[in-house]
Amino acid sequence: MSLLVVGSMAFDSIKSPFGAVERVVGGSATYFSLAASYLTPVRLVSVVGKDFPREVIDMLASRSIDTKGLKIAGGETFRWKGYYEYDLNTAHTVKTELNVFRDFAPVLPKEYRNSPYVFLGNIDPRLQMDILSQVRGPRLVALDTMNYWIENSPAPLREAIGKVDIVIFNESEIREISGEYNLVKAARTVRGWGPSRIVIKRGEYGVLHLSDGTMFAAPGYPLETIFDPTGAGDSFAGGFMGYLASRGTADPTDMDYRLATMYGSAIASYTVEAFSTERLQNLSTEDIAERVDAFRALTEFRV
Amino acid sequence: MSLLVVGSMAFDSIKSPFGAVERVVGGSATYFSLAASYLTPVRLVSVVGKDFPREVIDMLASRSIDTKGLKIAGGETFRWKGYYEYDLNTAHTVKTELNVFRDFAPVLPKEYRNSPYVFLGNIDPRLQMDILSQVRGPRLVALDTMNYWIENSPAPLREAIGKVDIVIFNESEIREISGEYNLVKAARTVRGWGPSRIVIKRGEYGVLHLSDGTMFAAPGYPLETIFDPTGAGDSFAGGFMGYLASRGTADPTDMDYRLATMYGSAIASYTVEAFSTERLQNLSTEDIAERVDAFRALTEFRV
Repeated sequence: MSLLVVGSMAFDSIKSPFGAVERVVGGSATYFSLAASYLTPVRLVSVVGKDFPREVIDMLASRSIDTKGLKIAGGETFRWKGYYEYDLNTAHTVKTELNVFRDFAPVLPKEYRNSPYVFLGNIDPRLQMDILSQVRGPRLVALDTMNYWIENSPAPLREAIGKVDIVIFNESEIREISGEYNLVKAARTVRGWGPSRIVIKRGEYGVLHLSDGTMFAAPGYPLETIFDPTGAGDSFAGGFMGYLASRGTADPTDMDYRLATMYGSAIASYTVEAFSTERLQNLSTEDIAERVDAFRALTEFRV
Repeated sequence: MSLLVVGSMAFDSIKSPFGAVERVVGGSATYFSLAASYLTPVRLVSVVGKDFPREVIDMLASRSIDTKGLKIAGGETFRWKGYYEYDLNTAHTVKTELNVFRDFAPVLPKEYRNSPYVFLGNIDPRLQMDILSQVRGPRLVALDTMNYWIENSPAPLREAIGKVDIVIFNESEIREISGEYNLVKAARTVRGWGPSRIVIKRGEYGVLHLSDGTMFAAPGYPLETIFDPTGAGDSFAGGFMGYLASRGTADPTDMDYRLATMYGSAIASYTVEAFSTERLQNLSTEDIAERVDAFRALTEFRV
C-alpha cells in the first residue's frame, strides 16, 4: 500500500576516514524513498532546485516512486557538508545551506491525500503537522526528528509527536527530549505523549524497539567495509515503513514490527557500503532477503 | 566439568550516578566464580589479605566453588577505587592498590592440574602463561586482559594469546591490540595469532562473537535499573565459560557458544542491578533461565 514520505533532498559533501565526495545526491527523503521502493509504492514530497540532476528524478520515477509531490523550485537545492571520524556513529555538520528548503510549504497532490502510511521525515515539526493534517485518516504515521528541533521548537515538536503512532530517534535525541538517560524510562516518557512505539537507532549497535509490554533489539550487521554512514538512518526508516506498508494492515502485529525492523536494518547495512545512494539504488530483492537471513543467522539461538 | 579460574579478589570503592559504596567485595575472580558456580564446579585461584572477610570465603566455599587455590597472605587485599558517569560503559579508575597481589605467583593445588576448562582472568600475561603451563592438556582455555597489559607487556600478552582458544576483549582493547578500528578485521588479526574465537564485550550494547565463518551478536538487556556495572564483564565470562564447562565437550558447537553467550549475558544483566555481588550471589537457576528466555523474546524474529 502507498507510503507517503516528506523530507529533504540534498547535495551532500562528505568526508569519512575512507574517502571524500563532493556534491553527491543525498537527503532524508531520497534515502527513504529508495529504500522503501523495494517493498511498497512510495509518494514523495520534497523540494529541489533547478540544479538538481534530472536523471536522478527520472531514476526515482522509474521505480515505484511517485514524484508528483516533488517540487522543482527556482533557486539552489539544499546542501549539507559534514564529516565522520573513525566513530562512524556521529556525523559532524560543517555547513547547512537550506536554499529552496527555506520556503518549503508543501500542498499535497490530491491523489496523495488518502495515503494509508505516512512518514514525516526530519523537518520543522510545524510542517510535519501541516502535512499530516492534509492526509485523511492514515492507518499508521511515523515521525523522525533531530536535535535541532528538540532544542529550537520543543513545543511544536511535542505536539507533533502527540499526533503520530511511531517515533524514530537516535539515542542522544530521545535522552535529550525526555530528560531521561535510561532508554527504557525515556521511551516510556515519550510514549506518555501519545505514540505507541519508539524505535531507537544506535548506529553500528543496531536498533532498539520499545512499546507497551514488548521490546525488540536488533544488532547492526558487523560489516568489514563501511564507507559512509550518511543515509543509514533514513534507509532504515524506509525499509521499516516500506515493510509495514507492504503488509497493509492498520494494526501490525509484534512480529510485523520485528520483520519491518530487520528489513530496515538489512537495507541500511547496504547503504553504508558506498558513498551516496550508489549501493542503495542497485540492490535486488534477493540481496535484501539474503541480508535479512544473515541477520537471523547472526542473532538466533535455541535453548 | 571443573572450571579453573585465576584472577583478582578485591575491595572496591565505587561511585556511580546512582550511589556510592566503600570497600565492598569485588575482583574479577569473585564475580567470575559466583557467576560460573550456577552452572559448573569452579576451582578458584587468587589471593587475598588477612583483612578479607572470612564469611565471604565461606559463602564462596558453600557453593560449588573450591577455594583450595585461594591464598590468604599477610598484608592487605587488592583495592580498586573508581567511578562511572552516566555512560556506564566506561569505568574510570581513581586508584589501584595491588597490596598482596603484587607478589601473586600461584602454584596450583595438585587436584587443580587436570582442570579441563580454564579461564585466565585479567592479570600479568606472564602469570597467565605460568598458570596455564601447570595445567595438563586442558580442553578449552579462555583469556581476558586489559589495556594496561596491552600497553605495558605487549610481547608476553601476544605470546599468552597464542596459547589459548578464546580471547575476551572489550571494543577499545581489541582495537588497541590489533591496530584495526573495524571489529571484523581486528578479530581476524587476533585470530591470526592463534585463538579460534574472539568475544567482544560492548557494555550495554551486548556482545559480539567472531570466529572462522560464523558471527553471533547478542544485545545487552534493556534494564530500567542499572546501579553498578562493576563485575558485569567478569560475570559474563563466568556464565559463558560455566555453560561451556557444563556441556563438557572438548569441541563445543556453534550453538553451544551461542547459548554460553546468552547464559553469560543473562547472569551479567543481574549483576548490574545492585552494587558489588549482592544480586549476583542471590540468583536462582530459574532467574537465569527466565532471563535467557527474555533475551530470546528480545531478539527473535521469523521470516
